[in-house]
Amino acid sequence: MNISGATRVYCLLGDPLHKARTPEHFNGLFAQRGIDAVMVPLEVPDGALAEAFSVLRKVKNLDGLIITMPHKAGMAGLVDELEAGGRNAGAINAARRGGDGRWRGDMFDGRGYTGALAARGVDPRGKQIHLIGAGAVARAIGFALREAGAGAFTLVDVNRSRAAALAGLLEARVADEPEKADVVVNCTPLGMKEGDALPCDPARISPAAVVSDVTTKPEITPFLSAARARGHTVTTGRDMFEAQGELIAGFFGWR
Amino acid sequence: MNISGATRVYCLLGDPLHKARTPEHFNGLFAQRGIDAVMVPLEVPDGALAEAFSVLRKVKNLDGLIITMPHKAGMAGLVDELEAGGRNAGAINAARRGGDGRWRGDMFDGRGYTGALAARGVDPRGKQIHLIGAGAVARAIGFALREAGAGAFTLVDVNRSRAAALAGLLEARVADEPEKADVVVNCTPLGMKEGDALPCDPARISPAAVVSDVTTKPEITPFLSAARARGHTVTTGRDMFEAQGELIAGFFGWR
Repeated sequence: MNISGATRVYCLLGDPLHKARTPEHFNGLFAQRGIDAVMVPLEVPDGALAEAFSVLRKVKNLDGLIITMPHKAGMAGLVDELEAGGRNAGAINAARRGGDGRWRGDMFDGRGYTGALAARGVDPRGKQIHLIGAGAVARAIGFALREAGAGAFTLVDVNRSRAAALAGLLEARVADEPEKADVVVNCTPLGMKEGDALPCDPARISPAAVVSDVTTKPEITPFLSAARARGHTVTTGRDMFEAQGELIAGFFGWR
Repeated sequence: MNISGATRVYCLLGDPLHKARTPEHFNGLFAQRGIDAVMVPLEVPDGALAEAFSVLRKVKNLDGLIITMPHKAGMAGLVDELEAGGRNAGAINAARRGGDGRWRGDMFDGRGYTGALAARGVDPRGKQIHLIGAGAVARAIGFALREAGAGAFTLVDVNRSRAAALAGLLEARVADEPEKADVVVNCTPLGMKEGDALPCDPARISPAAVVSDVTTKPEITPFLSAARARGHTVTTGRDMFEAQGELIAGFFGWR
């Protein structure tokens, strides 16, 4: 990589970012495709996003942003236009400047997840889904699964009003019923910290079900490790992340 | 270069930047020294600097800035503290965040110039100096030459009040007298565009004098080319730029 004054710039916005692998991934894509662009991490703290975007949109050689925690929902309110994925999720993880100077955002977490399923040969069409957690990631995944033709949804969240809200959006039932699901997705942060409880007892999950987690840190959570030991097909946060790469490259118009 | 989420970030601020070679130069220094840092160009337009710095100082993984046209004077008014070089020049080309979160700026253009002289074996002590142009670069170079013990100064500028102001600061005479000088420095932009007039007739310059220009685009201006043809020792904008690298590395604390 050779960064010159003519190199186009993309930023990863989030906080903290010291463990983020996104810059390596996208800079690898740039190198592979011979694109004179660079992605740099910018640790923008919570509360400074609106001001930061107001400046970044004035930076002439900046073409796009990747957005991660805690800014995904906030950025959805700042861009000029939302693609359907961003509208559905109420959050975005990518934004680009159009030729007209307007910024457009979209959310690829959900399609990353359905892409991860596809990479394991799993078609969600008609499948019964159980979501654990009803936050932003659950919402993005839920909408992408619906778009992909998934059947009935159940979901749970420790925050009951959040569970009810997402259930309303997805026409899901709030019910702690992993037993009936073909696909069980942990969308909570449980498993990122040592000593976390399991999001659900793996013994309750049907043996044929796919079991998924969304974090990349660690890639194999205790929940996935237990599911694998019981013979389940699993998908990881890294699978989701990798499946997003091509989609986001398309969004940014990289060839 | 492998940019991760933990890579420290430096930005080059200016507009336009597409011809800037500064990122290549500093990223080369990082690679040579094994420093996990990256410099990226950010084209911040005139008028957006204060807002941009207000955001950039909140970016937690940003450690420093290199500042180029048109922001050198503006940034001197935005940092929390100015080193002597910045105070003298009324402008800065480097700023760093201290451990206390305060930003400190300094100007290395002048010391880059005296470094370029030193690299040619020229000691300005007691030398008579003629500056053509009385803008920000002339001011930085004038102060650095004074610090290095230069003798009397003459200077000219098409803008007479600017010439008088710099003459006051440097205790110089406003006089079109290149004939008497040991060192003649073109600090005007003349020579950057094709068809520009020469900043001064080379035939008027004493044969033993050093002749200098400050631009890197082109490195060898028609003025320097004529001076070389007449046998003068010359220094270029690139010499100035390269002599600044080590000084700026020290300012940023890179080892």
